[in-house]
Amino acid sequence: MRNIKLTLAYEGTAYLGFQRQKQGPTIQGTLEESLVHLTGERPRVIGAGRTDAGVHALGQVVNFHTSSRIETGRFVPALNSLLPRDIAVLAAEEVPLAFHARRDAKRKTYTYRLWRPSVRPVFERDRSYHFPRPLDLAAMEAAPRLLVGRHDFAVFGSSGSTEVKTTVRTVFAAGWQEEGPLLTFTITADGFLYRMVRNIVGTLLEIGLGKHPPEWVEELLALGHRPAAGPAVPARGLFLVRVEY
Amino acid sequence: MRNIKLTLAYEGTAYLGFQRQKQGPTIQGTLEESLVHLTGERPRVIGAGRTDAGVHALGQVVNFHTSSRIETGRFVPALNSLLPRDIAVLAAEEVPLAFHARRDAKRKTYTYRLWRPSVRPVFERDRSYHFPRPLDLAAMEAAPRLLVGRHDFAVFGSSGSTEVKTTVRTVFAAGWQEEGPLLTFTITADGFLYRMVRNIVGTLLEIGLGKHPPEWVEELLALGHRPAAGPAVPARGLFLVRVEY
Repeated sequence: MRNIKLTLAYEGTAYLGFQRQKQGPTIQGTLEESLVHLTGERPRVIGAGRTDAGVHALGQVVNFHTSSRIETGRFVPALNSLLPRDIAVLAAEEVPLAFHARRDAKRKTYTYRLWRPSVRPVFERDRSYHFPRPLDLAAMEAAPRLLVGRHDFAVFGSSGSTEVKTTVRTVFAAGWQEEGPLLTFTITADGFLYRMVRNIVGTLLEIGLGKHPPEWVEELLALGHRPAAGPAVPARGLFLVRVEY
Repeated sequence: MRNIKLTLAYEGTAYLGFQRQKQGPTIQGTLEESLVHLTGERPRVIGAGRTDAGVHALGQVVNFHTSSRIETGRFVPALNSLLPRDIAVLAAEEVPLAFHARRDAKRKTYTYRLWRPSVRPVFERDRSYHFPRPLDLAAMEAAPRLLVGRHDFAVFGSSGSTEVKTTVRTVFAAGWQEEGPLLTFTITADGFLYRMVRNIVGTLLEIGLGKHPPEWVEELLALGHRPAAGPAVPARGLFLVRVEY
């Protein structure tokens, strides 16, 4: 038996999310089907992050156990020849049998992309959120600094996850970056609650619109329940960038 | 009567090309339908370049005549609210009645994007051509310089265009640029024969692969018939970038 770790990129637009569902295609389900074709076995694929419908990945990490003798390096071209064009395996390595892509993740990084020009995005239409309204960038840059550190992020979590034991997380870094027509939010933490990044970005946009001062983030963290924070932004701007172990 | 000039961006993936066809959706047809809704008239839209199925535009230019009293600046938001998400109007201006988007074009610029990493593109899968094979970049950079100037480009034209009177064109600039995972060819000319850019890129790739020296371009130009040149590359890497008047 071997434990294989894969790094994946995918465009989530056509999928119901990472996690296998009966109602339609998922990343996990599609990858598992390709592994059936390749190995003759039906391994269960474990993902580091259970991205929602429409959410993308530049560096999702998964693992699966297999008794297949396929050379580890061969998994990359072999799976890519079987997978649809919107999913690609970037790397494969053999890891200790106990490695678990989700439980062993130490840090995850997500980005959220806003499309700022008044004319809506054409090529990036499924990979950004069109938000052309004027924003106070100084206020929006000040607010995420207040997220950094160990906090109870309950106010930024949504119901939907069943496995959550604690809502305390440590954010290592969070900030905005302008790049041409895109304004991108990047956040690194030891873990994320369900919809946490989208809820945080929605809250930061309320601050950018001048509806609340940057310190609102501190008040919300102290408050600790959901309806007070800003509305979640759409899935299509969100990317799982990197998982570190 | 007014003559309105529009600048458009579109992703050509879902369209049979610019020019109206009965078999399926085209850019011209979709734009004309939106104009029917907006103006109550059915103006004929004239495009500067008749992009093929799967070819994209960052700055296609079109014009149409209308007796509508809609303020010129209103065409941008009004059409964008009617058009599908993969077509956007970037700008609108009123021009003299005699202006003709195709006949009056002085220069057009196209780019062709190659995706170079060994793993295929995920997000750029419909907007680049995956070409991971090793290339002699020095040879590929030398060859396009031989295209610059006034030449008979018959060898790089394909049958398919009916309006061609002469196959002589002037290329003002042509060259390659590396940008992360992409290797992009950019060419500016006073006009292009049918499939000329895709035929040129296919020929330059043969040179990059070492099958021919850069001087092959000169031999081909002197030869003046099509089958001798390299095969055309796929439509999905091609973008109409700019039209100048």
